[in-house]
Amino acid sequence: MIAYPMSKVLQGVTVALERAGLSSAHAEVVAGAMVDAEARGHHSHGLQLLPVYLQRIRDGGINAHGVPAWVREDAALAILDGRGAAGQVAAMMAAERCATLASAIGVAVVAVRHTNHVGMLAAYRGPFQRAGVAGLVLNLAGTSVAPPGGCRATMGNNALCLIVPRRDAEPFSIDFATGAVACGKIRQAASQGRSVPTGWLLDRHGFLTTDPTQLDEGGAVPVFGGHKGLALSLIIEILGGALAGGITSRSVSRQRLNPGKVMNCAQLFVGLQPAAFGVADLEPFVNDLREAVRDAYTEPPREPWFPDQAEACALRAAVSCGLALEPETARLLDLR
Amino acid sequence: MIAYPMSKVLQGVTVALERAGLSSAHAEVVAGAMVDAEARGHHSHGLQLLPVYLQRIRDGGINAHGVPAWVREDAALAILDGRGAAGQVAAMMAAERCATLASAIGVAVVAVRHTNHVGMLAAYRGPFQRAGVAGLVLNLAGTSVAPPGGCRATMGNNALCLIVPRRDAEPFSIDFATGAVACGKIRQAASQGRSVPTGWLLDRHGFLTTDPTQLDEGGAVPVFGGHKGLALSLIIEILGGALAGGITSRSVSRQRLNPGKVMNCAQLFVGLQPAAFGVADLEPFVNDLREAVRDAYTEPPREPWFPDQAEACALRAAVSCGLALEPETARLLDLR
Repeated sequence: MIAYPMSKVLQGVTVALERAGLSSAHAEVVAGAMVDAEARGHHSHGLQLLPVYLQRIRDGGINAHGVPAWVREDAALAILDGRGAAGQVAAMMAAERCATLASAIGVAVVAVRHTNHVGMLAAYRGPFQRAGVAGLVLNLAGTSVAPPGGCRATMGNNALCLIVPRRDAEPFSIDFATGAVACGKIRQAASQGRSVPTGWLLDRHGFLTTDPTQLDEGGAVPVFGGHKGLALSLIIEILGGALAGGITSRSVSRQRLNPGKVMNCAQLFVGLQPAAFGVADLEPFVNDLREAVRDAYTEPPREPWFPDQAEACALRAAVSCGLALEPETARLLDLR
Repeated sequence: MIAYPMSKVLQGVTVALERAGLSSAHAEVVAGAMVDAEARGHHSHGLQLLPVYLQRIRDGGINAHGVPAWVREDAALAILDGRGAAGQVAAMMAAERCATLASAIGVAVVAVRHTNHVGMLAAYRGPFQRAGVAGLVLNLAGTSVAPPGGCRATMGNNALCLIVPRRDAEPFSIDFATGAVACGKIRQAASQGRSVPTGWLLDRHGFLTTDPTQLDEGGAVPVFGGHKGLALSLIIEILGGALAGGITSRSVSRQRLNPGKVMNCAQLFVGLQPAAFGVADLEPFVNDLREAVRDAYTEPPREPWFPDQAEACALRAAVSCGLALEPETARLLDLR
């Protein structure tokens, strides 16, 4: 692997998406979200997705000419039809609308439907940070997760993300999926020829396996946290799926299996302005929680123990040393 | 244990609370929530709490003369100061306001602060059901939970609840706390002289214990679901605590340790009207999810496999056979 400057990688991804058919405006948003995830250490939500997206643009699953359209625009509630365009484009529009509405009246909810894969939810933190609004994002995914003790994937690896704006720092975010692990992390292991830890994956017969290739051979990721993880996933199914898009994850088309078909997934964005609740700044509370977690250990933890620490560390390395890419990714980006 | 008709138990609890000092109106709300939890099989959130509440009313921790007051009343956002009254009273007022506002404009958020213990969150489903509004409730609790691998309780056993209105049935609800188990279930075991399963509790030194009395001797409940359970608990701390009440769980007073002190806990109620999102009825989606979970098993599960099944079963038994009470509880209620 060779490291390239982030700006070169961003430019390369943008050009590759444009060549596949996206408009410059859409390509910039998608590339921005992908490189952001890559730089924070989430290859699974970064450049690993590029070949999938390129194929889907060519095959029509991502509608290169689709333009998301507002179907409801109230003071505290808006609904965006993604029109099958790149999911990142609709998600960024929704985040912007949600943050703007909430900064005007304190609270807003924006639903996105008929949309595609959005990658890492925290990538949509910019509008919330600029508006000083806290954002809660729920994402409905296609079926890849089995309930506790189940042996088949009948639920989405649904995700939940909280974005907390900060005055003098990058926003703080908490971002996780309801499977024991994100599917992309299993595919990353597969592409690198590594096995996965026991507990990440069931094979098509419902038995635990360490072979990551089983995921796309009818395998399933166990839900995290047993029946309580299932409970959270059901909440995301109902609010981020049924309410936001009139669907559950069983109706979402899998993006690799059907590259010519719009996924038809959905998200719900909730914006809450701290000032409207009489709270000038949430940062002191985040710091208090950081201390609370650290204080629970007899020896101060040496490993990252708070959600943002590993990402901040990866980002520092990416900014100063560049992004290390596999040779085939560098070729896709015309980097040499 | 002897079984008594639910109506007699409800009346007995109401009178006991009135005798301790609550007004009839407040006593009715508190008794209603407690008997509801008891009838659904959650003794931990039901009559087990009665002696604690009676002492707190007498000692002033529950302010018998406190009347919750609105400090902000916008179209989509309201803030209720609980004024140290019984938490159930403020919570029911918040649920009613949240459901009413959301049914008018599609979305609403209500924060409750300076309040006391509220018991089972699903007990506040009535206003959401009547208004046809989905309700998401976040509750900040005092510190009793340790983060993954931690040995001390530095976080709340915070809870999350989704209420889904249904046209021709009781509302569907999902209601859980972020500890491996609710603290009340551990105290229930303690009061019955039972040990608890390994994984429910750490002693004051951070070692796993099966002795439920260790909870109130400096013990801690591990967070559910490892780092992802921690992530959810942090989201509740920030939205249900910092934003709703300007606090985190380290500032919440423990109700048993300080019976003369208002707990100062907080809740956030979010109301979402399905019709405003173009969804006539969420029930078909709940039924689809019920099927999805069942379909994940090779053999149809015989045990309850969906959140509402165990409760529905307990409720049927309570309605037809009455509520079985310990002799000392029956004495508190003047039942014989």
